[in-house]
Amino acid sequence: MKIVVDAMGGDHAPEVTVKGSVDAVKEYGVNVVLVGKEEMIKKELEKYQLDSNKIEIVHAEEVIENEDKPVRAIRRKKDSSMVKGLKLVKEKKADAFISAGNTGALLSGGLFVVGRIKGIERAALAPVYPTSNGISLLLDAGANADCKPKYLHQFAIMGSVYAEKVLGIKRPKVGLINIGTEEGKGNELTKETYKLLKESDLNFYGNIEARELPKGKADVLVCDGFVGNTVLKLTEGLAMEIFSLLKKEITKSFFTKLGALMLKSGLKGFKKRLDYTEYGGAPLLGVKGAVIKAHGSSDAKAIKNAIRQAKVFVENEVLEKIEEDINRLGGKHGKEERG
Amino acid sequence: MKIVVDAMGGDHAPEVTVKGSVDAVKEYGVNVVLVGKEEMIKKELEKYQLDSNKIEIVHAEEVIENEDKPVRAIRRKKDSSMVKGLKLVKEKKADAFISAGNTGALLSGGLFVVGRIKGIERAALAPVYPTSNGISLLLDAGANADCKPKYLHQFAIMGSVYAEKVLGIKRPKVGLINIGTEEGKGNELTKETYKLLKESDLNFYGNIEARELPKGKADVLVCDGFVGNTVLKLTEGLAMEIFSLLKKEITKSFFTKLGALMLKSGLKGFKKRLDYTEYGGAPLLGVKGAVIKAHGSSDAKAIKNAIRQAKVFVENEVLEKIEEDINRLGGKHGKEERG
Repeated sequence: MKIVVDAMGGDHAPEVTVKGSVDAVKEYGVNVVLVGKEEMIKKELEKYQLDSNKIEIVHAEEVIENEDKPVRAIRRKKDSSMVKGLKLVKEKKADAFISAGNTGALLSGGLFVVGRIKGIERAALAPVYPTSNGISLLLDAGANADCKPKYLHQFAIMGSVYAEKVLGIKRPKVGLINIGTEEGKGNELTKETYKLLKESDLNFYGNIEARELPKGKADVLVCDGFVGNTVLKLTEGLAMEIFSLLKKEITKSFFTKLGALMLKSGLKGFKKRLDYTEYGGAPLLGVKGAVIKAHGSSDAKAIKNAIRQAKVFVENEVLEKIEEDINRLGGKHGKEERG
Repeated sequence: MKIVVDAMGGDHAPEVTVKGSVDAVKEYGVNVVLVGKEEMIKKELEKYQLDSNKIEIVHAEEVIENEDKPVRAIRRKKDSSMVKGLKLVKEKKADAFISAGNTGALLSGGLFVVGRIKGIERAALAPVYPTSNGISLLLDAGANADCKPKYLHQFAIMGSVYAEKVLGIKRPKVGLINIGTEEGKGNELTKETYKLLKESDLNFYGNIEARELPKGKADVLVCDGFVGNTVLKLTEGLAMEIFSLLKKEITKSFFTKLGALMLKSGLKGFKKRLDYTEYGGAPLLGVKGAVIKAHGSSDAKAIKNAIRQAKVFVENEVLEKIEEDINRLGGKHGKEERG
């Protein structure tokens, strides 16, 4: 198995991308292709003792920066680490691609360079969402601001496959993020999507209100990219804000300071539960390859985790299973139309 | 001034609705009309010493329950406290109506019984959203699941009038909830709305991402009812979940328990900041009357606060100002179309 890592992507590249790759090679025995500025990568690699034929470098002169406009960057920076890395997957010279770089560019690159699976209407970004009893998979988290019911139905299928094959959840429960719990509630999109999911072979739980999201009632959470992105970012922002307010309150007096000191380890464990970078990257589901977006602030461990995730993705044939389920759906829809 | 209170609405009615009304009469000198089951209201009123001509009872045989289907309830329960109360406002026999009852029914009742202000396309529910430096007004919080750019423009106008006249914020900053901060980001709705707000006379701040909402960057937050409801409920759910996780962590050992004890007052102050019931009810903006939705779990203080809020609403001529601004907008749009 050969996994491509965008050596130049993320806030701490190439230090952490190289270290994470080296650790993954040692731990999981995968082959890694590091794409990026050769001199820089070599310099980082020199820090480690490694069986050299397991890590390959592909030189890329350009880097797509976070400030670059996604579509334009993918079209113009043909010699960037991201475009060159995605091409390796497209041309089947490698099995998976991981980047902690520009999210929008990776989404565009996934579509324009790698391309969608036949039958898939839209690809979706699917990060994990931390809950009080584990994690849920949330999709779409921002690849598609405007969606149709058909897209959400496909998101539910792709999310179910991924949750089962990579997260190891048997017959994952699919929840539709909605305002109101009963059937018939919501906007035009969710009302129509409800009907599709109800009639599907999926393990459909029903509507889930935003209030219930942190409780982890479903394994796969389906919504349009506007709502998904809003949910994800609000969760991040609120957790940060609550911690900062808490910090202010507890440093107000000697006694609360003392109390805070005693609480420290408890708080740390708690904060870790909310830190979703712990769980690796977000796959871009629906493209013809394992493409994974790691968090921009990823450390070496997060990169290593994303490589493990890519390995499981490929080993468990997620793409093939998605293709199969989508084909069956296409056939079924066709039958219904004829019938 | 005469303010109608739905004596039967809310989890703790009629105890708290009567007590809140009595307190408001004493404190603000307003006249209150309590609508609901006369015998029950009388029994509650007997507990207090009060100048009787300031409180009036209007008997209503029926009660709209939380389980009732909103539109059907408004149409069929003509003798309910909610419908009778709204009629008093419609017929100009009273200035404002407050209910802690069924939210959906109050929205329907606002539209069907009281009616929209001329020129207003949709009425919006506008609760306050607690932030680290105060509050923002959020609209629409759930009255309209599907919206057009025109509606959001009107929400921005109504929200600005309310924020200025009732919350006392001079030239309130209007933020558009969006995914991405730059112009051109978002879904079809927010992209078009951005253009309208940018060209308007409003104090438009620009797009605000969900991550920034808790920071209080704008005084008025505009979005469709699906997104607004999701933001509000997720905030509630997350705050509750974080507190419950925190509680678990800090009761793990003797030292963290001791620490928690020392922190107690600090935590309490902090929790209060997040409790948006502190700030009174949410007005239904766009209907021809001051209609205010109080939280279902309102206590007497919350009801009293909502009455004060209704008083300020009426005194500062919020309806008249909304009508004026919407008329000017209509004229401007007309001119642009001609030009």
